[in-house]
Amino acid sequence: MALKKTKIAIAGIGTVGKGLLRILEVLGSDTSDIEVTAIASKKKVSVPKKILFKKTQVFKDAEQLLEYDNYDILVELIGGDAGVAKRIVFNALKKKKHIVTANKALISKYWKDLNKISNEMGVLIKFEAAVAGGVPIIKIINEFLVSNKISRIYGILNGTSNYILTKMLTTNKKFSEILIDAQSLGYAESDPTFDIDGIDTAHKLSILCSLAFKIDCDLKFIKAEGIRNIDLSDLKYADSLGYKVKMLGISEQKGKEIKNYVYPCLVAKNNFIANVDDVYNGVVVESNFCKKSFFQGEGAGSLPTATSVLSDILSIIKLNKSAIRKQKKLSFKMSAVENRFGSYYLRFTTEDKPGVISGIAKEFKKNNISMKSMLQKESKNKNSKSATIVITTHDCNEKNMSLALVKINKMKFIKKRTIYYRIENFIS
Amino acid sequence: MALKKTKIAIAGIGTVGKGLLRILEVLGSDTSDIEVTAIASKKKVSVPKKILFKKTQVFKDAEQLLEYDNYDILVELIGGDAGVAKRIVFNALKKKKHIVTANKALISKYWKDLNKISNEMGVLIKFEAAVAGGVPIIKIINEFLVSNKISRIYGILNGTSNYILTKMLTTNKKFSEILIDAQSLGYAESDPTFDIDGIDTAHKLSILCSLAFKIDCDLKFIKAEGIRNIDLSDLKYADSLGYKVKMLGISEQKGKEIKNYVYPCLVAKNNFIANVDDVYNGVVVESNFCKKSFFQGEGAGSLPTATSVLSDILSIIKLNKSAIRKQKKLSFKMSAVENRFGSYYLRFTTEDKPGVISGIAKEFKKNNISMKSMLQKESKNKNSKSATIVITTHDCNEKNMSLALVKINKMKFIKKRTIYYRIENFIS
Repeated sequence: MALKKTKIAIAGIGTVGKGLLRILEVLGSDTSDIEVTAIASKKKVSVPKKILFKKTQVFKDAEQLLEYDNYDILVELIGGDAGVAKRIVFNALKKKKHIVTANKALISKYWKDLNKISNEMGVLIKFEAAVAGGVPIIKIINEFLVSNKISRIYGILNGTSNYILTKMLTTNKKFSEILIDAQSLGYAESDPTFDIDGIDTAHKLSILCSLAFKIDCDLKFIKAEGIRNIDLSDLKYADSLGYKVKMLGISEQKGKEIKNYVYPCLVAKNNFIANVDDVYNGVVVESNFCKKSFFQGEGAGSLPTATSVLSDILSIIKLNKSAIRKQKKLSFKMSAVENRFGSYYLRFTTEDKPGVISGIAKEFKKNNISMKSMLQKESKNKNSKSATIVITTHDCNEKNMSLALVKINKMKFIKKRTIYYRIENFIS
Repeated sequence: MALKKTKIAIAGIGTVGKGLLRILEVLGSDTSDIEVTAIASKKKVSVPKKILFKKTQVFKDAEQLLEYDNYDILVELIGGDAGVAKRIVFNALKKKKHIVTANKALISKYWKDLNKISNEMGVLIKFEAAVAGGVPIIKIINEFLVSNKISRIYGILNGTSNYILTKMLTTNKKFSEILIDAQSLGYAESDPTFDIDGIDTAHKLSILCSLAFKIDCDLKFIKAEGIRNIDLSDLKYADSLGYKVKMLGISEQKGKEIKNYVYPCLVAKNNFIANVDDVYNGVVVESNFCKKSFFQGEGAGSLPTATSVLSDILSIIKLNKSAIRKQKKLSFKMSAVENRFGSYYLRFTTEDKPGVISGIAKEFKKNNISMKSMLQKESKNKNSKSATIVITTHDCNEKNMSLALVKINKMKFIKKRTIYYRIENFIS
């Protein structure tokens, strides 16, 4: 068979797009089976002076790709679940073009539709770059663990929030201070909402959930809790109790039920995931044959994410189109976090007087909650006459915990709303 | 294109072979594009009652496969770098059959030949199962990091020795005791030579080295040091110094030189690899675009290794044969461990009298070695009048260290041959 070059159209030259051009430039003649026929970019692009860019047409507006056909693979690096990114992707699929994208918002929101159309058209849609940039977790689920039944997948999927949590503890600074540092270093956006409120993690988790459990995971079933209100003192108490606070996405399947949680929680320091610090991402997959596998790498950044994009491009080129199989879809019930069963870390701010602990303990008992450890600290401010009590619990129902907390928070000796985090032990 | 079933011949039904039959049985109709046409096994096999085994022919002797042709992929799970395993693999390649194997000894010894013949015949030889069973490190190097230039790859590649080192420290027992435990639990062979002397690690490292640096790594350039003589006290001293002792395989490229080291060494506890305990395997890859990636999973065992085998089988089925490309081979100089530059941990057993430290320090100075930390312990046995001195050094040349140790070991105050381990900081 004659070696035909694969034609690539790249839409969007931002952080990832620049990384992709850089890698293609470095590889040069090693990528002799690719040619870049089109680049769409609002800003001026400096196209590398390499043979694979010899015939590259540059468009100012990605909309122009709607009328353009001279490509086999559309590489969509614009982002967002609406607007031109959405239009050019659906348009390309209908023209039987393959898609490679880093767009987690689009994939998680339109997973079902994108999947359906690409199946009908007999083309591939690949998105390694959408989840954990420098960790090939999509490839691992789809190609390596393909024979395994996954029971749980969880991880640190957002580098920005992981960076903030790491730095708060190591530099002894408050959330707001570290956020400003992170923004000035370029680790956080000027509007950090998506990262710190868990929305980005939810997008990525919904993609992992869909692939791991072979379902169409609807993003709306995932309720995200973020780290915006996290207090340095809790990171320290957790540390002294042998835990780290990590912002996790957790997806697990039990019987006909699927749980998707996105929240900051305590993880024992000897858990793999607790050692994933700074901007790193890490994912643990639990499966029937391989038990526990763990993968860690740079979560974002221009070049690691572009590595994922290029890996997808090359794998489409290698793949025999005839081998594209329709995936059998399974059906599950989505479980809300209210149905969680597990242990908790709680920090009470109370008056410093007798009867406080028995008051809390009584309410716990009513709700079938039993304590595992207790730590009492006097207030630094001697005049405030308040006490801090840190309690960890054995496993209990989240519903019971919520009921207990509503009652406890109304008790007279409670001086501030009680802080609580879930402790994740990941025992099956 | 009509969907033709891919015919598989499986040679050898030991631990991995049984795992493969088990996974195929569980998957059942999900693998409708595979049929197992032949199984060769000396022992009696119970062939699963599934449609993909409907036409399976069972041979008592794998030699019979030399005359058998009704298969597309030979799955060689016999093992060993000679004998029938070697014969059937070379025979199958010459008949233009694809190979999937878990045979690290064969791959590392005949890498160059196997590569050459498979290229000439236009078939694939895949061996994910040969290195770190449940970690898809071959796929990650070949398909994900394909656009990256790898500068270093290192890891815990042998589960048995990792189990022994982990248990020695946690149970406070000697090497010989833990080895017996490991043998009774099935974690170590009755002849554990390959595992504990680093030979198995060397086999796997040579494969990683060949792939990461696109060379034909010759096994004979890798000198392995094992853990047979490791002393519990060193694991404890290392622990108190903030290190763990791990049996590593390390392959790195600098300019035109490649270093391949296999030895037990000290690793800072905050290094990813230090947290890989028990029978787990873990691999760190350092590359230009993705920087540091880390992968951890079950290193061996029937089902994780069979997962790798099946992943290879399915990827051959998916792959377009026309896409098989000849790899461009690079040329490098192999560097011996004598050329190592790095830091060291040393434990001296000396007489308990003045002048000892100055004697050691003088010899260090002569050889350009500077100390980083020193710890002196009195002997438990008060009559022995001996002292233990633990020293860590700054980076120096291994040649200088060897020269210094030869001299120091001859000094009158030295009561036992000095123990030393390399400290790996993995700073580039």
